[in-house]
Amino acid sequence: MADYLKMSKAEQEQELSKLKRLYQTYQDKQLKLDMSRGKPCPQQLDLSMDMLKLSDYHAEDGIDSRNYGLLEGLPEARRFFAELMDVQPQEIIVGGNSSLNMMYYLIDLGYRKGFADSPCPWSQEKTIKFICPVPGYDRHFRITEYYGFELLSVPMTPAGLDMDKVEELVQDSSVKGIWCVPVYSNPDGYTYSDDTVRRLAQMKTAAPDFKIIWDNAYCVHHLTDDQEQTLNILEECRKANHEMRPLMQCSTSKITFPGAGVAAVAASEKNVNYILKHMTPMLISYDKMNQLRHIRYFKNKQGVLNHMQKHRAILQPKFELVEQILEQEVADCGDIAWWTKPNGGYFISLYVQQGCAKRIVELCKQAGVVLTDAGAAYPKGYDPQDHHIRIAPTLPSLQELETAAQLLTICIRIAALEKQLNHF
Amino acid sequence: MADYLKMSKAEQEQELSKLKRLYQTYQDKQLKLDMSRGKPCPQQLDLSMDMLKLSDYHAEDGIDSRNYGLLEGLPEARRFFAELMDVQPQEIIVGGNSSLNMMYYLIDLGYRKGFADSPCPWSQEKTIKFICPVPGYDRHFRITEYYGFELLSVPMTPAGLDMDKVEELVQDSSVKGIWCVPVYSNPDGYTYSDDTVRRLAQMKTAAPDFKIIWDNAYCVHHLTDDQEQTLNILEECRKANHEMRPLMQCSTSKITFPGAGVAAVAASEKNVNYILKHMTPMLISYDKMNQLRHIRYFKNKQGVLNHMQKHRAILQPKFELVEQILEQEVADCGDIAWWTKPNGGYFISLYVQQGCAKRIVELCKQAGVVLTDAGAAYPKGYDPQDHHIRIAPTLPSLQELETAAQLLTICIRIAALEKQLNHF
Repeated sequence: MADYLKMSKAEQEQELSKLKRLYQTYQDKQLKLDMSRGKPCPQQLDLSMDMLKLSDYHAEDGIDSRNYGLLEGLPEARRFFAELMDVQPQEIIVGGNSSLNMMYYLIDLGYRKGFADSPCPWSQEKTIKFICPVPGYDRHFRITEYYGFELLSVPMTPAGLDMDKVEELVQDSSVKGIWCVPVYSNPDGYTYSDDTVRRLAQMKTAAPDFKIIWDNAYCVHHLTDDQEQTLNILEECRKANHEMRPLMQCSTSKITFPGAGVAAVAASEKNVNYILKHMTPMLISYDKMNQLRHIRYFKNKQGVLNHMQKHRAILQPKFELVEQILEQEVADCGDIAWWTKPNGGYFISLYVQQGCAKRIVELCKQAGVVLTDAGAAYPKGYDPQDHHIRIAPTLPSLQELETAAQLLTICIRIAALEKQLNHF
Repeated sequence: MADYLKMSKAEQEQELSKLKRLYQTYQDKQLKLDMSRGKPCPQQLDLSMDMLKLSDYHAEDGIDSRNYGLLEGLPEARRFFAELMDVQPQEIIVGGNSSLNMMYYLIDLGYRKGFADSPCPWSQEKTIKFICPVPGYDRHFRITEYYGFELLSVPMTPAGLDMDKVEELVQDSSVKGIWCVPVYSNPDGYTYSDDTVRRLAQMKTAAPDFKIIWDNAYCVHHLTDDQEQTLNILEECRKANHEMRPLMQCSTSKITFPGAGVAAVAASEKNVNYILKHMTPMLISYDKMNQLRHIRYFKNKQGVLNHMQKHRAILQPKFELVEQILEQEVADCGDIAWWTKPNGGYFISLYVQQGCAKRIVELCKQAGVVLTDAGAAYPKGYDPQDHHIRIAPTLPSLQELETAAQLLTICIRIAALEKQLNHF
């Protein structure tokens, strides 16, 4: 292979023809692969089946987890998540099967009522703005879009995000918060540096009730021995007298069952009490049987870490395979693409030439491989440079993944050549 | 015993002294009984434990219930609830562990966005009013209170509710809906007559988007062979060209596990699609593993009905015991109390002399038996006549219940005499 950017037009045309014939062979396979979402594969789901064997659902203090009550969660479940999230049990609300649902609730609460430190409900502000590190998690952005907030993009960096930009934006009092995936970010796989965390904790914000939504979805989702973690955001905020600022989330969706895990919120005790008071009209209690299943099975954080090694054994080869195929098939074609090499999480970010992402996703789709929509990782689904593609390698089998990754590289190369040849 | 209302003052004083001595013997027992909520007892929870033995979580169409997806619920779960609620599968959303949570969401949706037939979000109306049949379910009222609605009380009747009053109130366009527990109502145990259902379905409402929240919490919770049921509200509304009017709920909270059952919403397909569209930013999916557990265990409505016979075997003696003790100890004391004799559901309504309910609940509490707060069944917890007490006989054992009911009758009689003697 040669550098596409240095080929003559004729060479480019010839290469494109060759690739199109190759592409045709993939179309002929009539593939049907879905790599659009960060879904665990069946083998991962099988890892947690033993937890379903629990037969005694009596929790500590004589609590019958089967019956109504304890909106804040079982005492042992609060302790469990407190250890996992490095806070105190009274700083935890253990929820249902979805941390996204709890984040939605928190945004809704800010909008309808404000928080304990809000001068007024956010809905009474003229405009509400929210900072979105990009590329980021589409479902985060969608919540704040749905509530009509103005979304402010800030670029991600390998150290977290462009903090100069963040510190500038928070001078505006209508900026009420920021979405963060601090560890193995979705989709880049970056982890916030200590400096990033400290600056987020310490920065002066014009809004007195500025909130950091700290979605620690991948806090124990290591793929290598380089186990990345961040400083404790609540601790750092407390040091800076901003203990009301962070609202942290975590869930077992990608530890046990994505549809039937347990989610938790961590925050200062004052935040927790305020949130629980407002949740009271909404719900009697979350599913405590499922909480107990999880807690009895894992026992503690070490139990979770041991379990995550089994996930790693399944996932690491998949990430390595994709990176290897990209390296083999694309690296030599010149500066047409680069990709992140995360030490954990669920995604690889693929960056292609400006204006090529949509075309590549479309080409893959026409050959039966569904990727996340190009642009999905940006507010309103719009990537101004049309250059980012999120790769989710977890769900397919290794064999399927190999086919899909090979196809992807062909599509990357086709789009690069088409761009050179002004085909679009 | 003699009629308290016909006794001389001296006789009344003497009887009161005797009762107070008796009351003291109950205080000496240092009871600790909670009859405040409609909680199933442990024996009822044991009935459903076999459902937890499910080991294969693959649903129909190759769906893996353990993974993300299907916000609307598993196909077999939609069919199951469709049969239970007498609608079509596409008219069902199968949710999480709480129908209350789904009702809260629907009120929130009306408030924030309105429904498909709303001229504008309810929050943009000058005032929002909601009809509350009284006595009713405190947690219903609390949701609409929390959202700042004005609550309009309408008296319950053995045939459902005072429909003349309802038809009058809905002439006001700010009246946006009504809370209903149509079968074995909480707390009276009344079931809406065919006439009541038809009038609710047919009535002209000034609000074009008037909603009936039809909480069918006790639809299969029969305590006798007189299995009460109502007309199909969706069907009746459809006949009257009001198919957007009803939003129906049901859950297995009091069929399987109160903390870990499965809830469902039924409504016209247009309502369901509108609701699902708005739920999409909030949640990827509810707990489908728990859905599958339930559906595989019960198979169909007949499976549920068979299961409910086992609940009846546990509950019927409890309801009979309370009614028998009330009859024995209070009926002869004159017109100081009466109570409902429901054929199903979870409660008995006890009606005492005006101004006596709070005193009776307080007396019971001081002797270690916690009843639902007097007034709880009325908007804002305020019973203008202070005459209603909700009895929840399900949780205590028969032996505990006998003690509690005996104590309750003593407190009823003490309060009646105190009232006669102007002690308060």
